[in-house]
Amino acid sequence: MAGRAPSEQEVVGYLKTVSNWGRWGSDDQLGTINLITPAKRVAAARLVRDGVGVTCARPISTDITPETTYQPLRFMVDSGEGRDTAPPERLLARRGASEFIGMVFHGYAITHVDTPAHFFWDGRIYNGRSCNLVTAREGATVEAVELLHDGVVSRGVLLDVARTRGVRWLERGEGVMPEDLEAAERASGVRVEEGDILLVRTGNYARRAVDGPVNPTEAGSPGPHAALLPWLQARGVAMWGSDTHNDVTPTPYPAMGHPFHIGALVGLGLWLIDNMNLEDVAEACRARERWEFMLTVAPLRLRAATGSPVNPIALF
Amino acid sequence: MAGRAPSEQEVVGYLKTVSNWGRWGSDDQLGTINLITPAKRVAAARLVRDGVGVTCARPISTDITPETTYQPLRFMVDSGEGRDTAPPERLLARRGASEFIGMVFHGYAITHVDTPAHFFWDGRIYNGRSCNLVTAREGATVEAVELLHDGVVSRGVLLDVARTRGVRWLERGEGVMPEDLEAAERASGVRVEEGDILLVRTGNYARRAVDGPVNPTEAGSPGPHAALLPWLQARGVAMWGSDTHNDVTPTPYPAMGHPFHIGALVGLGLWLIDNMNLEDVAEACRARERWEFMLTVAPLRLRAATGSPVNPIALF
Amino acid sequence: MAGRAPSEQEVVGYLKTVSNWGRWGSDDQLGTINLITPAKRVAAARLVRDGVGVTCARPISTDITPETTYQPLRFMVDSGEGRDTAPPERLLARRGASEFIGMVFHGYAITHVDTPAHFFWDGRIYNGRSCNLVTAREGATVEAVELLHDGVVSRGVLLDVARTRGVRWLERGEGVMPEDLEAAERASGVRVEEGDILLVRTGNYARRAVDGPVNPTEAGSPGPHAALLPWLQARGVAMWGSDTHNDVTPTPYPAMGHPFHIGALVGLGLWLIDNMNLEDVAEACRARERWEFMLTVAPLRLRAATGSPVNPIALF
Amino acid sequence: MAGRAPSEQEVVGYLKTVSNWGRWGSDDQLGTINLITPAKRVAAARLVRDGVGVTCARPISTDITPETTYQPLRFMVDSGEGRDTAPPERLLARRGASEFIGMVFHGYAITHVDTPAHFFWDGRIYNGRSCNLVTAREGATVEAVELLHDGVVSRGVLLDVARTRGVRWLERGEGVMPEDLEAAERASGVRVEEGDILLVRTGNYARRAVDGPVNPTEAGSPGPHAALLPWLQARGVAMWGSDTHNDVTPTPYPAMGHPFHIGALVGLGLWLIDNMNLEDVAEACRARERWEFMLTVAPLRLRAATGSPVNPIALF
Repeated sequence: MAGRAPSEQEVVGYLKTVSNWGRWGSDDQLGTINLITPAKRVAAARLVRDGVGVTCARPISTDITPETTYQPLRFMVDSGEGRDTAPPERLLARRGASEFIGMVFHGYAITHVDTPAHFFWDGRIYNGRSCNLVTAREGATVEAVELLHDGVVSRGVLLDVARTRGVRWLERGEGVMPEDLEAAERASGVRVEEGDILLVRTGNYARRAVDGPVNPTEAGSPGPHAALLPWLQARGVAMWGSDTHNDVTPTPYPAMGHPFHIGALVGLGLWLIDNMNLEDVAEACRARERWEFMLTVAPLRLRAATGSPVNPIALF
Repeated sequence: MAGRAPSEQEVVGYLKTVSNWGRWGSDDQLGTINLITPAKRVAAARLVRDGVGVTCARPISTDITPETTYQPLRFMVDSGEGRDTAPPERLLARRGASEFIGMVFHGYAITHVDTPAHFFWDGRIYNGRSCNLVTAREGATVEAVELLHDGVVSRGVLLDVARTRGVRWLERGEGVMPEDLEAAERASGVRVEEGDILLVRTGNYARRAVDGPVNPTEAGSPGPHAALLPWLQARGVAMWGSDTHNDVTPTPYPAMGHPFHIGALVGLGLWLIDNMNLEDVAEACRARERWEFMLTVAPLRLRAATGSPVNPIALF
Repeated sequence: MAGRAPSEQEVVGYLKTVSNWGRWGSDDQLGTINLITPAKRVAAARLVRDGVGVTCARPISTDITPETTYQPLRFMVDSGEGRDTAPPERLLARRGASEFIGMVFHGYAITHVDTPAHFFWDGRIYNGRSCNLVTAREGATVEAVELLHDGVVSRGVLLDVARTRGVRWLERGEGVMPEDLEAAERASGVRVEEGDILLVRTGNYARRAVDGPVNPTEAGSPGPHAALLPWLQARGVAMWGSDTHNDVTPTPYPAMGHPFHIGALVGLGLWLIDNMNLEDVAEACRARERWEFMLTVAPLRLRAATGSPVNPIALF
Repeated sequence: MAGRAPSEQEVVGYLKTVSNWGRWGSDDQLGTINLITPAKRVAAARLVRDGVGVTCARPISTDITPETTYQPLRFMVDSGEGRDTAPPERLLARRGASEFIGMVFHGYAITHVDTPAHFFWDGRIYNGRSCNLVTAREGATVEAVELLHDGVVSRGVLLDVARTRGVRWLERGEGVMPEDLEAAERASGVRVEEGDILLVRTGNYARRAVDGPVNPTEAGSPGPHAALLPWLQARGVAMWGSDTHNDVTPTPYPAMGHPFHIGALVGLGLWLIDNMNLEDVAEACRARERWEFMLTVAPLRLRAATGSPVNPIALF
């Protein structure tokens, strides 16, 4: 499908031609989240028939694997060991267990939301702000994850591109193209509409279960191709998630490195969910032959953060 | 109301008389989460009319205040500063910002879920397991937060005890009693039923906004009284949350220290949400004169953890 | 002594007039550490007569106090609790205890070395390098603490300014002036010479033991006055340490904020030791009426760090 | 040399037959550090002739390698990037750079001291204390690294076993035996005496430079054999360090796992330095044909810790 891919010059041009800067006013920080209306949320809730919830997140492991950039930490502050035999005077204050957790959630392993402040282009973040507003000490002083404190609730649509192509998974280095999305729409009888949270399955996480974790910068990764950007804007997608880190690797556009991230976050103000687990939700969809559901994404209320680890819940 | 409070001996006895051990089998780890059925979730979704989401979490601050036990950390791995003027060869690899976050979420400041493994009594956790199963190295090898990977979705009911009592907030050291809950039910025309997630507002977080944060072990705190335990079991509450750390302080029962935590977590297998922000959801309820809503709690998929920071989303 | 203090303009001028830029070549990163010769180290070792070692560091506490900027962390990875009664199959792999430690050592609480890269002035660090070389991701790519991997060993000289002035401690806001150092020299019969590590006692840590920890930005602090800078250059001091955070607070020079840090680190390339405990070493000096000793400072070999926590050892 | 190795039963018996329990009183926590007298420190200082300091520590890297158990962390709190072009009002408060550092120093990568509390045997630590005194919350409430707050200064002796055997390095799985130490003594004309800090070079760190880091539990490691324990007691070694993690791997004594650690720490109260870099100091010794030097080990004053990262400095 390389023939249908836009040139590097075209993709760089998307920052101007496929842009939402100013669309919701010069003060806007929400970007495409604006597309989710109360009516959209009500309609999403109406999709619930079976009362079955399904995670779209991967487990967070403290193991070091090839996909680890920074090791997640978990240390117990207090545990239960020996609490059955400890002398009574020590027991009273020690009847609980707790832990320290620490992580760099961005990367290749943890399911997380990216805010528009996560990437820059030409010194700018979404809506034309200076990237200097994401400071070393204060963090994301604008376009931070706290903007989503009331959660993101909308219709979730799963497009299973691997299944539509008839493969177990897309090969590393392959991009998801607009034709893939439209073929998946046809195959599943659903159409992506304004305000939807679009989840796209490449089978990448299924492959991980078979072949083990890899480092995408070394082994490559499937992912959304920058060619999708005009399509996503045209359809009014409010949030994008996939079972990849959300850029084809190696990059088809060396001058940009991460063209999908840059076009989505900087140009469109389109919030992303990286490294999802779409296996459970795909199974739930297949079983019902229904590719839409209510989806709730509830980021932690981290201060001035460029994202948050999340556990998006699909409800059928 | 001290006259109606059970004796210490009675409360210690709750571990036997107000217990769910064995109720869902000897292998059960879910406790009261078992009470949430698919039909309950469908009914919860039917409550959505306005399509308005409301956070029930507090912001997570890295500041040190009197309520800080362990300081939450947030350090930038990479930022946007100077990215507008950096030489091109450095820019390509540096077009993103990210951060390390770290926290001990248990304590008095962060909205979080407690799993049954968070507390012990007499060497046991919920369903009679040994507290030695919560180890210093592996963490909660049972009854861990990962059990809730598919999220907790149910009807949320807010009982505004402070409002029903006609006060801005309960005084520190005051306990929420069964009479309070029943008075709030009457005042708001709602009845707590099996499988509900019960949120109880003492006004404690409103007071924090006025008086500033305090350390509960020094200043005291309102909270759920252990006298609630039989009531919660009788009604079939699936999850409890309040705007306190969920035990009256100073404790009315010195031999137990945290009798509500122990009775709920160990005896009932009743999962808790500590340190909620119930101001926004109370305002939303008051505006609608409706005290029920769809509630989604989506813990992070942390491995072997005794809880998780969360951002519970009420949907009206 | 305010009359003898230089004007703000003069102190700003020190960056040019009291500067070691270029003195040891344009490639130099060591600054005043160059002044410590092998002969100086041999002479330092010759000072050892009693074979008594004395710490010059404060204990590192994980408590939150008014002087805490970032809380030091210490979590056990594994402990000994219950190891006496654990089943044998679990014991074999668990016969050790270990911990995670974490800290921001700069600040007001921990004894640590500052490298010249720790402060900037007018976009520059010591020897005229751009402050952009201290990056958000890589850290101090120059003038980092690893330069001291072979340790700093020299003659240590303690000048007890508080004792010489006949006070228990200098008041907060008071600066140590050149006259103080010369009076202390006379009182103790020692003269600061080229290559010495100069330790200056204000009694600030003794006061902490009496009055408790305070936040210097709120309560003020004694410290070295910028007026010392020409004196330190003239005498050839190789490293400076004191029992303060090493700047008079509130600052006498608002345009600079931290004039001693800036003049020492940026202008002179003079490495600092902040927040020392000089009580034990002062007692050891008084007992012997000897104010010189062998001093060993052994920073951790942290990569690209702007300093290191240290435990400097005086040997008498 | 397997023929000369003691049986497992004998090595287990060392806990009784090669023990320092009670030797310095039932309250003692210092163990073999007691063997370093003031006179020994004075004599150590007399060894300094050239005034040349040499590190015995490895650099601390934040990279993940096969030898990483827990990744060391280093995140900048503030950096210099963009400080040359920032607006003046932001500059004043931002003229410094600093970092968070975090690590689990025990393991295979970082040069660190082990206190006697680091290992247990049969529920006991050195001098017969219960291992329950090393708690999950408080850490090492006894036999902690803070005991060494005044540093460890003594004669350091380097025995280069690899050189004496005429090999570049000992093979993985090979143990250093008493015969090795005596052969090295003869070859270098030095004799280990009471109160010495004994450093033993296997060439293991040199091999790391050639072959890259490995995980000892997978690839094996040379190390001190438990057969050394009687020899070390007889000679009165005060502290032991080597360029290994200080146990032959795979272990010759499966019932114990880490027999050298257990015998040294628990039985003898002999403090260890793991994972040293002995390449620089070996080169310095070879150049001078002198295998003794002044050695200073200055652990951080960490509270209740089972060890500390260190940078031991040899001074010639």
